[in-house]
Amino acid sequence: MIERLAIIGVGLIGGSLARALRAAGAVREVVGCGRALPNLEKARAFGVIDRFTQDPAEAVRNADLVFVAVPLGAMRGVFDAIREHLQPETVITDGGSVKGSVVLDASAAFGALPPRLVPGHPIAGTEHSGVEASFAELYRNRRVILTPLPDTDPDALARVQTMWETCGAEVTLMSVAHHDEVLAATSHLPHMLAFGLVDALARMRENDEIFRYAAGGFRDFTRIASSNPVMWRDICLANREALSAMLARFGVEMTDLAESIRRADGDHLLEIFARAKAARDRSIEQSH
Amino acid sequence: MIERLAIIGVGLIGGSLARALRAAGAVREVVGCGRALPNLEKARAFGVIDRFTQDPAEAVRNADLVFVAVPLGAMRGVFDAIREHLQPETVITDGGSVKGSVVLDASAAFGALPPRLVPGHPIAGTEHSGVEASFAELYRNRRVILTPLPDTDPDALARVQTMWETCGAEVTLMSVAHHDEVLAATSHLPHMLAFGLVDALARMRENDEIFRYAAGGFRDFTRIASSNPVMWRDICLANREALSAMLARFGVEMTDLAESIRRADGDHLLEIFARAKAARDRSIEQSH
Repeated sequence: MIERLAIIGVGLIGGSLARALRAAGAVREVVGCGRALPNLEKARAFGVIDRFTQDPAEAVRNADLVFVAVPLGAMRGVFDAIREHLQPETVITDGGSVKGSVVLDASAAFGALPPRLVPGHPIAGTEHSGVEASFAELYRNRRVILTPLPDTDPDALARVQTMWETCGAEVTLMSVAHHDEVLAATSHLPHMLAFGLVDALARMRENDEIFRYAAGGFRDFTRIASSNPVMWRDICLANREALSAMLARFGVEMTDLAESIRRADGDHLLEIFARAKAARDRSIEQSH
Repeated sequence: MIERLAIIGVGLIGGSLARALRAAGAVREVVGCGRALPNLEKARAFGVIDRFTQDPAEAVRNADLVFVAVPLGAMRGVFDAIREHLQPETVITDGGSVKGSVVLDASAAFGALPPRLVPGHPIAGTEHSGVEASFAELYRNRRVILTPLPDTDPDALARVQTMWETCGAEVTLMSVAHHDEVLAATSHLPHMLAFGLVDALARMRENDEIFRYAAGGFRDFTRIASSNPVMWRDICLANREALSAMLARFGVEMTDLAESIRRADGDHLLEIFARAKAARDRSIEQSH
């Protein structure tokens, strides 16, 4: 049982965690913290949180668990604000999509990485944001990656792992660097392609007409281009190195594909498409 | 009323047209034609067609309407095979995703483009194929583009337009070249990105692990990479010019994006992402 959970950033991710823990009867009190008063009021009205404050230092007072779910660019400021106000036994975790930058921000704010901070990342979300988009089932059967460091307190790790399992998630441990590479490949690069495609079309002269003829496949393909631009700017900056490496890898692939089209090399195109279809069909089977 | 409809290629596209016209009571007899006997037998068992033949010349005999729904690479062969066996009043149309190549193939096969051939393209489909994937509602509220040429018979055009409207589709007319540019942007380029992304990941050493951490957004984004590889090879070869131009345009966009990430230019990234989100959200509103 979590006696007092502080959620810094009550949006889709933070709000859904609170709802899931409440639904499981695993938390006694939830304190919400954020910058926008109307959002906090909404969160209280929805019953997602019990009370709120706009001051992170106030929010974490006597909390046994703190969940930081703010955009990556705001992590450092939150760590600075709460540093002096934590109990020695308070466990901190976060929901940031890049772990290297969170570890750096926390190390800088605290002087060294606190042993009771467990960096984490729930692989879940939708293209919607805000507490009104949150729901208790968001994490059910989804994966949560935790990236403990050598000095991470095993008890803190166990508490965070139990918290996510209570929400129905499957927890995996991996290194910070490996997490950031895997996510660059499966999430950050696809978002760049979707944003890049829609922007390229939007900048064409006939863009209104072009979007009119986009069919269902296009809508699925570009859904993630409706994601929050500020969040994605932060992710790009925070995971610059791994994302740049993936972009370069994808650039090589696309140069090969474009060359094959230019020289009408049907055999090579068929080979690429067949390999991709096989991998995609296999990955879907695995995930069921 | 269509007295006898010949469908060359009884898959998702051809099968769904037959089902929709039957459901509307707008066709008396449907003759199916294809190369694979088991597929034709299935189509007859499902009631999609009344009878079948593997010989296109036989299939079009005394048909008042012929719908050619084979991969683009097979169009020329079908036109050659039916050339000598059409009634003077028979109307021909097709479902090819590229119109320039169909017009070239027909012109070469017939000596000149037949006035009663109306090139067409229903903007509908799923990542599944085969007659077992066909359904009567596939074209309901979807767009069908017809690309008549200066010599196209207005009566033939009207008959094809009515046929599609009977299936619940909205028909638009445009030029062959414009169709091929619009489709390169909204369909062919996105498919290249999805195939290219999945193939790039499949070729990474840790590919099994990587696909394991792909979340819902990735599955939506890559759904179209499960499409038929042969069909897509043909589309690439048939629409080489317009697709190469779109790939180059996208390459410029991605170079700009990758450069902005490398030099940590958050303002420029935010500008790109916000413009893309606005265009995507607007395009979704329009389509509802």
